[in-house]
Amino acid sequence: MLFDSPSTFGRAFRIVTFGESHGAAVGVVMDGVKPGLPFDLVAIQQEMDRRRPGQSELVTPRSEADQVQVLSGVFEGKTTGHPIAMVVLNQNQKSGDYKAISELFRPGHADLTYDRKYGIRDPRGGGRSSGRETLARVAAGAWAKQQLAALGVTVRGFNREIAGIAGARIDWAFVETNPLRAADPEVFLAQRLAVEAARAEGDSVGGVCEVWIEGLPIGLGDPAFGKLDGLLALACMSIGAVKGVELGAGFASARRRGSDNNDPLSPTGPLKNDAGGTLGGISTGAPVVVRLAVKPTSSISKTQQTIDREGRSAQISTHGRHDPCIAPRIVPVAEAMCALVIYDAWLTQAALREQTVQPIPEWDWEAVQRLLEKTPSK
Amino acid sequence: MLFDSPSTFGRAFRIVTFGESHGAAVGVVMDGVKPGLPFDLVAIQQEMDRRRPGQSELVTPRSEADQVQVLSGVFEGKTTGHPIAMVVLNQNQKSGDYKAISELFRPGHADLTYDRKYGIRDPRGGGRSSGRETLARVAAGAWAKQQLAALGVTVRGFNREIAGIAGARIDWAFVETNPLRAADPEVFLAQRLAVEAARAEGDSVGGVCEVWIEGLPIGLGDPAFGKLDGLLALACMSIGAVKGVELGAGFASARRRGSDNNDPLSPTGPLKNDAGGTLGGISTGAPVVVRLAVKPTSSISKTQQTIDREGRSAQISTHGRHDPCIAPRIVPVAEAMCALVIYDAWLTQAALREQTVQPIPEWDWEAVQRLLEKTPSK
Amino acid sequence: MLFDSPSTFGRAFRIVTFGESHGAAVGVVMDGVKPGLPFDLVAIQQEMDRRRPGQSELVTPRSEADQVQVLSGVFEGKTTGHPIAMVVLNQNQKSGDYKAISELFRPGHADLTYDRKYGIRDPRGGGRSSGRETLARVAAGAWAKQQLAALGVTVRGFNREIAGIAGARIDWAFVETNPLRAADPEVFLAQRLAVEAARAEGDSVGGVCEVWIEGLPIGLGDPAFGKLDGLLALACMSIGAVKGVELGAGFASARRRGSDNNDPLSPTGPLKNDAGGTLGGISTGAPVVVRLAVKPTSSISKTQQTIDREGRSAQISTHGRHDPCIAPRIVPVAEAMCALVIYDAWLTQAALREQTVQPIPEWDWEAVQRLLEKTPSK
Amino acid sequence: MLFDSPSTFGRAFRIVTFGESHGAAVGVVMDGVKPGLPFDLVAIQQEMDRRRPGQSELVTPRSEADQVQVLSGVFEGKTTGHPIAMVVLNQNQKSGDYKAISELFRPGHADLTYDRKYGIRDPRGGGRSSGRETLARVAAGAWAKQQLAALGVTVRGFNREIAGIAGARIDWAFVETNPLRAADPEVFLAQRLAVEAARAEGDSVGGVCEVWIEGLPIGLGDPAFGKLDGLLALACMSIGAVKGVELGAGFASARRRGSDNNDPLSPTGPLKNDAGGTLGGISTGAPVVVRLAVKPTSSISKTQQTIDREGRSAQISTHGRHDPCIAPRIVPVAEAMCALVIYDAWLTQAALREQTVQPIPEWDWEAVQRLLEKTPSK
Repeated sequence: MLFDSPSTFGRAFRIVTFGESHGAAVGVVMDGVKPGLPFDLVAIQQEMDRRRPGQSELVTPRSEADQVQVLSGVFEGKTTGHPIAMVVLNQNQKSGDYKAISELFRPGHADLTYDRKYGIRDPRGGGRSSGRETLARVAAGAWAKQQLAALGVTVRGFNREIAGIAGARIDWAFVETNPLRAADPEVFLAQRLAVEAARAEGDSVGGVCEVWIEGLPIGLGDPAFGKLDGLLALACMSIGAVKGVELGAGFASARRRGSDNNDPLSPTGPLKNDAGGTLGGISTGAPVVVRLAVKPTSSISKTQQTIDREGRSAQISTHGRHDPCIAPRIVPVAEAMCALVIYDAWLTQAALREQTVQPIPEWDWEAVQRLLEKTPSK
Repeated sequence: MLFDSPSTFGRAFRIVTFGESHGAAVGVVMDGVKPGLPFDLVAIQQEMDRRRPGQSELVTPRSEADQVQVLSGVFEGKTTGHPIAMVVLNQNQKSGDYKAISELFRPGHADLTYDRKYGIRDPRGGGRSSGRETLARVAAGAWAKQQLAALGVTVRGFNREIAGIAGARIDWAFVETNPLRAADPEVFLAQRLAVEAARAEGDSVGGVCEVWIEGLPIGLGDPAFGKLDGLLALACMSIGAVKGVELGAGFASARRRGSDNNDPLSPTGPLKNDAGGTLGGISTGAPVVVRLAVKPTSSISKTQQTIDREGRSAQISTHGRHDPCIAPRIVPVAEAMCALVIYDAWLTQAALREQTVQPIPEWDWEAVQRLLEKTPSK
Repeated sequence: MLFDSPSTFGRAFRIVTFGESHGAAVGVVMDGVKPGLPFDLVAIQQEMDRRRPGQSELVTPRSEADQVQVLSGVFEGKTTGHPIAMVVLNQNQKSGDYKAISELFRPGHADLTYDRKYGIRDPRGGGRSSGRETLARVAAGAWAKQQLAALGVTVRGFNREIAGIAGARIDWAFVETNPLRAADPEVFLAQRLAVEAARAEGDSVGGVCEVWIEGLPIGLGDPAFGKLDGLLALACMSIGAVKGVELGAGFASARRRGSDNNDPLSPTGPLKNDAGGTLGGISTGAPVVVRLAVKPTSSISKTQQTIDREGRSAQISTHGRHDPCIAPRIVPVAEAMCALVIYDAWLTQAALREQTVQPIPEWDWEAVQRLLEKTPSK
Repeated sequence: MLFDSPSTFGRAFRIVTFGESHGAAVGVVMDGVKPGLPFDLVAIQQEMDRRRPGQSELVTPRSEADQVQVLSGVFEGKTTGHPIAMVVLNQNQKSGDYKAISELFRPGHADLTYDRKYGIRDPRGGGRSSGRETLARVAAGAWAKQQLAALGVTVRGFNREIAGIAGARIDWAFVETNPLRAADPEVFLAQRLAVEAARAEGDSVGGVCEVWIEGLPIGLGDPAFGKLDGLLALACMSIGAVKGVELGAGFASARRRGSDNNDPLSPTGPLKNDAGGTLGGISTGAPVVVRLAVKPTSSISKTQQTIDREGRSAQISTHGRHDPCIAPRIVPVAEAMCALVIYDAWLTQAALREQTVQPIPEWDWEAVQRLLEKTPSK
């Protein structure tokens, strides 16, 4: 029987993550690394910095350097083909006052379930259920993104919605210049005000993150349980705050007729991309578009009803530095997870055919993309 | 991680599926079967019959018996603990006229991607991408459902929406008595009329399927990539027609404030279940509620624009017997996939602790459930 | 790591086996099959026939056709890239009189351990522990051998020793023409007499099977737990009657000095091959030579001391048709298992590098091989 | 497809290793750790020290502390149930003069195969192919041994043979008090002289390591590819210097008759243990006895013929500190690998049955053991 470990992800390119919020370190071991490639630690650090807290007043002001160190698999600046272990040492190990949290179960957090499942838990900052676990995903995903970029594939994300306010178009140049990673400058101000209003009330808001994977060949992914759709869903739903995932038109397609929903095919490519870049779970070459429902941050300073470890009724108000909206920091994590899926599918495909799959050269993907960027699929 | 060979699913309880629509057989091998259990083939066949086409005028009138045969792992009516192989022989192997399909790529189908990925495909009824592949899932899922039932866990589904028309409440007794597996008798007629209207126009409609997993202990599922949320998302998004998955309030939670979204905890249990039965990816004991976006059937008789294998423009109209709405037949498949995830999580948990996890006895899940059934989460 | 479900073997090329000796069928599902390849069922059947009982008076005279049937993954004589399921229907399902066996534990057999592990067992012919389980290995291995042959790699075996009588040289042309699969005509008569003497006394003898894998490129296999040495050891030790495995000089190397044991390297290749074709677990290009210790057949008609299910002392004498030496029929099984390991390593390597590894063209492997065939390594 | 990583081992209890001889660190991540257990780092360090070089004049005098650090998974001295990462920082990273090795391929080492497979290698101390990789195995194995000890299972080893000189009996008290981990005081002096003679000549000798696993219940292990025999063979043959593995009588059984080889069963247990503790790949409860052929150390100062990276003829003499016999240091590594297999099988079994398997109480294993210790099986 395969008990594949819950800390393991991937097939041909495979990672194992470890570490708790306030333990000694958070880290990842990557296996399936090709040998002889330049290892660009600076580029990996940049992705870590994109995920880091404290980047603006709209996210938590806490600031940790989150400096990545490499323990193995690199020699004289190049990959050796052996496992690459990367760790981030936690600067915040001594967390003096977590007694309150260790006795009360925070609503929306894993406190209750960890306590009952394991009979023991590390209450400092959520332990293994902390968002810091995603550091390891981002480090490995940064490597996958680099390898995909060299293959002509880009993976980039933004927030389609914040606090229920949806953008209508994608201005990629705008995304990384605003603290919400919003893509539509016309609704950004409204989105920002909604976040600030929630913060002022000690509350939080959610968002919908959207990831675009462009430049894919036709033919990545597999039938049955190896569909790209399924693997991307697993990848994204395994991120702490995510409660829904959809591809292409997603839930909207459930409300359409087949004649509207099917993407007609033409000699220059599909005429639209409501399928979200896959047919039968396999990439068509069109951009793969994934959307993630990000719930509002569970930690709020508003008073909430809860119970303690003995099951007695209690009140809780989580003080300290919390993101009023976690969606901006989910974007690099979602990109990382999508990149891990796609790069793994690429390597897996290489075992099936000597020559890897190719895009259909005569198809005009830029035209499809221009069409797509103007109007959201949903 | 849960995925490896694209035809393999599960860890402690693990299945491998095989077979094409018009090949000799569709089948499944189950490993991780406990020894000495009664093997109830009749109960498995009942689940197969629930998925079978031809059950009413609202689904395809084609009728195949889909009779399951057992090849191994059972001795004198009991499981031996060794792999159980089950096959359904296809009665429809000789599919005379598939020339048209083999030259044209049907929009919404895997024809294009299979053709390019494999360089060869079995065009008879879609081959491996056919919905008949789900026969194997339902057979294995039926076994998982039986084992879960013996553990006090029920897995049952219905269609929350058909053609964009959503039901407001769940009448479980009604579900299996109507051809749409709708749960709200008050909107059933409207839903039915919508399906019939689409069919009359040679078109199709989609739906939203909802699965409830009840009677779970607290503590199933794992952190990181082993979250129940992620595994259920993989399980459901790997079903052909599904383009979105959400847990609990799902996408609706992305539009709420944290103070509304968090489920407060009380001594008698959580006061609502918008989390959908998990916290940190681990079961709370509340019903796990999963919703699947089912796209409208891709095969429609309306004329659609497409291309042939040479990339030339063409028109296609898929004649023959097609479901105007596939959602009713997705329900047993979705139940099967959810059951596979949960039963596997149960066995995996047993390796972690000698005594498996237990429900919290003092919590009043029936009260939570009554509350939940009255109003849809979304 | 290579093992997960106990019925699963392989990574990029992966099989799952099922079936009992006297159940409905024995079968295998292969995943990781490349698309568009001709599927030569006749060649597969030939390997099945090599393993089949009843080929001479030195092996069991029982005769079953062991006809392979293909259930999926092949369309118009070519592989589709989807799982290929193959089954052999058992003609011998009704085994009237197994009451004796079901109450007594045969020494050397799995009766005792299966009974205690599972609490239930299929006593007809050993159930899952029967040698018929290897049918599935041979069917899949035959496919792997075909694919390797197309890549210039041959996998062939013989018996180096029978009943403690060792051959000194390898005459490949002789191997398949004698009932012991012996390779040295000069000792064959002595070996044959030893087998016949044992049979006449209701007893059995063992042997040492040797497999040569030739034509390998340099570079197959991986470090740590992915060493070819380890994977071949798992593959061969998982065959029922095998109690020891060695590569190259094997146990003899433990009794040598380093200066004798190391294979010196020269511009035309290593000057000998006591390493058995690997360094650091990775193929050197020299023939990989594996030897398997095959124990004498456990079923003998001589009276043996044993116990019954209640733990009471008893006598047992296993009547019926048994091989006085199972080693000849182990040869095709060992070849199959080695082929599965090597073909899987080949595909796995393809995921690591676009161009697969190549032999060193200037090395004179034929010279090394001529040297090797003259004298056994041990 | 499962490309399970070559750095991963195990199922329910699963490790991933990383690190090179002269990189920053060697480490391991363990998943499948039960929560709430005391984490005894001192006991782990003791196993590391047993494997450490520099313990006597018969092994390499190099001395590194090999201090284990824990990065995750432990809170207030107890396991949390989450992955435990352990690392040993290398003190010897700056290896000034490895130019010679980087240009010449050392006979018996992985230099040639790594160079050709990866196109790049870390020549400092062998990189990933270094014996330092086994540090990670010993750290994880130490944890497995502790857990097994708590279950009543002991795993301990010694060298049955050194330089072809075999001991006749096992004096466990003697093993850890002599530098060869020999078990028979009567032949120890001869063994020691053989090692010293080889060292004086700049040469090396091999040995046969034997591991005993005692206190097992009946029923661990699985059929087909999950046989304990196969898993132990993989585990042991994946250790760098090992070229052969056998269970029980092993190769000797191939030279016996069935009537001699089968272990008769009696009401107080099997009357001997030539099977080596398994039947059908599943533990009988008798001691599992594994023997490993350890080749003589490849690094010798005697001059050897080799080639350089351009394929030109060259002479090599490996100076520096080398073990004249590596077998003493293989003992703790072999114990670790066997412990990993057995502990994993134990946890895997727990998923199959709620109550794990039990020894047969009325069997007198001590009598069997006394018999066994007097005479080597072979």
